[in-house]
Amino acid sequence: MSALPQSSDTPTRFRLTIEYDGAPFFGWQVQKNGPSVQGAIADAVAKLTGTRVIPRGAGRTDSGVHALGQVAHLDLTKPYDANTVREALNHYLKPNPISILDVREMDQSFDARFSALARHYRYRILNRRPPATFDAALVWWVSRPLDVAAMNEAAQLLVGTHDFTTFRSTDCQSKSPIKTLASLTVKQVGREIHVETSARSFMHAQVRSMVGSLKLVGEEKWSAQDLTAALEATKRTACGPVAPARGLYFVKVDYPAEFAE
Amino acid sequence: MSALPQSSDTPTRFRLTIEYDGAPFFGWQVQKNGPSVQGAIADAVAKLTGTRVIPRGAGRTDSGVHALGQVAHLDLTKPYDANTVREALNHYLKPNPISILDVREMDQSFDARFSALARHYRYRILNRRPPATFDAALVWWVSRPLDVAAMNEAAQLLVGTHDFTTFRSTDCQSKSPIKTLASLTVKQVGREIHVETSARSFMHAQVRSMVGSLKLVGEEKWSAQDLTAALEATKRTACGPVAPARGLYFVKVDYPAEFAE
Repeated sequence: MSALPQSSDTPTRFRLTIEYDGAPFFGWQVQKNGPSVQGAIADAVAKLTGTRVIPRGAGRTDSGVHALGQVAHLDLTKPYDANTVREALNHYLKPNPISILDVREMDQSFDARFSALARHYRYRILNRRPPATFDAALVWWVSRPLDVAAMNEAAQLLVGTHDFTTFRSTDCQSKSPIKTLASLTVKQVGREIHVETSARSFMHAQVRSMVGSLKLVGEEKWSAQDLTAALEATKRTACGPVAPARGLYFVKVDYPAEFAE
Repeated sequence: MSALPQSSDTPTRFRLTIEYDGAPFFGWQVQKNGPSVQGAIADAVAKLTGTRVIPRGAGRTDSGVHALGQVAHLDLTKPYDANTVREALNHYLKPNPISILDVREMDQSFDARFSALARHYRYRILNRRPPATFDAALVWWVSRPLDVAAMNEAAQLLVGTHDFTTFRSTDCQSKSPIKTLASLTVKQVGREIHVETSARSFMHAQVRSMVGSLKLVGEEKWSAQDLTAALEATKRTACGPVAPARGLYFVKVDYPAEFAE
């Protein structure tokens, strides 16, 4: 595509891979209450091109949630080079803790949200009696010892196709609560416990809701049967306390081979 | 020792293993300009015991330098249990980003500073074109690609016994600039480059001075011969720009087997 001449009225679609610190933002999506990642990127695009273009993201991360590999697309009418777009956006994004890791030109058929085959999230728990220090804003500090094996075993009960009403926010706008969870694993990684999960799509606060309930299993407050009962209750009040946003990372998005990097 | 009855005038010596975020502190050591880690711990001890006791640390980390395993000792006259000391200090240290990871009772012959056989430091570099985001306060972001193999190879020229005048701060108070560097390695670790180094002792700003010069090698601004020339110059002005404090971690301290954990 990049070899074809472009007229000024044929926009070029760019795919952005984005890392950010969620702490200062009211989430990915532009809204009235405060700064958003999407809005900060739109502002940077305006500084580059003179026109504010709202990027469409693969996932609407909540307030405080981080990303290692959020993906978004946007159309620019001027024929910029992908590297120029990346360099310019990173320049204009300062001092926001948002970093455009990669920009590439895509066919107009690519849609960061609707083309996505799978989304991957990681949740980081620091499980020890002494408090967190330099990573306090990046992990969930859980002082009571967690049984990682029990958490991982129970997690498998949530894998597959279920009605996840228990594990979604009451303000979730997804039409159906029935989703297929492709994987959910809990493992010790160095000094942290990581919960890794993948699905075609997740509902609002779903990962943090699952992690909050798995923590109860890890603390032996819930048995695996309690987790199943919570799932089968299909009501929000059956969920454990939702894990805080600061431990959650939107890791990456999978796309069909035709859009492969 | 813990089995022996203690009279009120026989103090008990405790060894503290300490993690901290260096960002808000003017370094480990108590001084007049601002908050210190040592001072914050002394304040917490005062809240526990009624008496302010200054802990003696194994290493005087500079302003902004972090610790994963600083070690300090202090003497308490009341017969506290080690776990109580740890829990109480962590309680009174809030909201300082200082965490007492471990406390154990030691013989009076143990001295956190003078008993130390080796000190281990790690320096974290995020080497990529896009800026750092959520870890911006925890790494040194270097945008120009670094040649890790060249850095590691050159690093070996600094290992051994040398006059390290070039690589110490002009306000270093060490009597002799001649020190023995036990190891210095540079390696890619996930998305970061880590410089790991060990020695019986380091001089003021020595690790950051070595890292700053190795970065020049990684950027191909310096050859390995340039690094040797800088070392042999034995003058501070021959050093490369000193690496920033935020990427440096005091990892751990080795003690003789008699004091083993």
